[in-house]
Amino acid sequence: MTIRLALVPGEPAGIGPELCVRLAQRVDLSTLCTAYADPDVLMQAASALRLPLELLDSEAEITRPGQLRLIEYRLPTPTRAGQPDPANAPGIIAALDAAAHDCLDGRMHGLVTGPFHKAAINDGGIAYTGTTERLAQQAGSDMVMMLARPGLRVALVTTHLPLRAVADAISGEQLERILTITADALRRDFGIASPRIAVLGLNPHAGEDGHLGREELDIIIPTLERLRARGLHLDGPLPADTAFLPHKLATFDAVVAMYHDQGLPVLKSTGLEHAVNITLGLPYPRVAVDHGTALDIAGTGRATPDSLFAAVAQCAQFAAQREQDA
Amino acid sequence: MTIRLALVPGEPAGIGPELCVRLAQRVDLSTLCTAYADPDVLMQAASALRLPLELLDSEAEITRPGQLRLIEYRLPTPTRAGQPDPANAPGIIAALDAAAHDCLDGRMHGLVTGPFHKAAINDGGIAYTGTTERLAQQAGSDMVMMLARPGLRVALVTTHLPLRAVADAISGEQLERILTITADALRRDFGIASPRIAVLGLNPHAGEDGHLGREELDIIIPTLERLRARGLHLDGPLPADTAFLPHKLATFDAVVAMYHDQGLPVLKSTGLEHAVNITLGLPYPRVAVDHGTALDIAGTGRATPDSLFAAVAQCAQFAAQREQDA
Repeated sequence: MTIRLALVPGEPAGIGPELCVRLAQRVDLSTLCTAYADPDVLMQAASALRLPLELLDSEAEITRPGQLRLIEYRLPTPTRAGQPDPANAPGIIAALDAAAHDCLDGRMHGLVTGPFHKAAINDGGIAYTGTTERLAQQAGSDMVMMLARPGLRVALVTTHLPLRAVADAISGEQLERILTITADALRRDFGIASPRIAVLGLNPHAGEDGHLGREELDIIIPTLERLRARGLHLDGPLPADTAFLPHKLATFDAVVAMYHDQGLPVLKSTGLEHAVNITLGLPYPRVAVDHGTALDIAGTGRATPDSLFAAVAQCAQFAAQREQDA
Repeated sequence: MTIRLALVPGEPAGIGPELCVRLAQRVDLSTLCTAYADPDVLMQAASALRLPLELLDSEAEITRPGQLRLIEYRLPTPTRAGQPDPANAPGIIAALDAAAHDCLDGRMHGLVTGPFHKAAINDGGIAYTGTTERLAQQAGSDMVMMLARPGLRVALVTTHLPLRAVADAISGEQLERILTITADALRRDFGIASPRIAVLGLNPHAGEDGHLGREELDIIIPTLERLRARGLHLDGPLPADTAFLPHKLATFDAVVAMYHDQGLPVLKSTGLEHAVNITLGLPYPRVAVDHGTALDIAGTGRATPDSLFAAVAQCAQFAAQREQDA
């Protein structure tokens, strides 16, 4: 079979377009991809990096480095590196929505996305808390955000919430959904027959028997007990500050953190260049880069494409696994 | 001058007593210390580890490995490794309070503490959120909790609070106190003439221009501006998930995190054995081990004493620095 991945560069004023240009130089990866983007934005990025780029139609065959298949989504205003323009927000989001739609209807086998600029999209009049959240809404499915690098996978119970809203967002139902989706994805997409998952507490020291918060006693522990009775291998709730010790991590297939800044600093503190952002629970595989728009270096050629390369490779692996199982 | 450090083992049923026995085998460290503890607890730990231990009075001179100076604080009930007894809580806390008092009045030059068992102390009828908090209250001083290992120092704006209480605990006054104490300690105790401090945001992505919470705009940014005007070198508010990248850390002398599980997982994920817990802002230097009571391995001899050794060495260095400056 031929794997076909939809590739969406994200914010045109960020480093997304130039990473796609770099990807086009790697035939092993570019043959898997079709970009959903503005051709002028990509050509401008290629020119800034002094790299060859030949844009092909969406059914063309890649025969040499520098080629990239494209489905056009033109933006109304020209792009200036480092300066997002809210006027482009609707076009940027249209490309994302179309790529995701093509994955939903099976035209594409998976979705790879670059970094988006949240503020510019919101300023452009589109309510948007994150790409992951938008894709789940469009698909009408639950989802789990997982960040992964070699040696560590971290899934989040809550994602882009103000810190003061986190505690109230943790419910037994929510936790059960997240853990079920995570365990299913570890089996189906990662091929781990009997995944073992570490679940962090919400409070420091996992609440220390109720002395530092009651959510562990009232919500987390009863939920874990219920799911263990159904056969899930769950450790926890564990204190977040000691759950990431190397000898502990070696015994888990994934860590489920209750919120963004509890789980991601460790993951990104080492090996960031090879880290990717995986959306579990969607009807199709989706992998994103694990970095932002890096507006300060956009157009300079200094951005490293390793995370995008890793995202394409990981997404292709998931897609092939699903096709094989189908 | 002779440095004299007060050494408090902490929970007698945990690994604290056996770590003190191991310390007694290291003459370079034991000559610095006087233990405030129950002699039976220490002798029992020595017996379990089959290590020599000779307890001396508080003015005696150490002449060989295995000796330790002691000021007696006897506990009412015998200790069983791994089983904290709330009946001992008043005696455990009396030893801590006395050791701290001797530091306050200059009899001792610094305080080194082992791990305490919070639940057992509270169950014993003593309201106690943490040793650091208790010491600050006794001294009537502000304090900052800092965890440090080679290559990384993390100070906390809030410490042992339920997560849902964190956002309301962040105020401009509180943040200013913490940053001032941290900068002063980096200068005075660590000898860094012009310390550079990274300050994390409270919300994911440091609030992303108000889209993910307003505390950065309303509280943190104005406070940093005010302190910069007074000459402090402050970077931030930085997103917590990317602040710990190695190339960023190399430019900071310390990271100030807004809460426990935002700052400590990275610190403890590597190099934990050499990490220590430093209390800044007290009238005397205080360094604690960076681990818990480890009840599951207490008495087995498997606990590593590296953090206690590092704590004694670090506390002695601070004490010597202060005596030299005095």
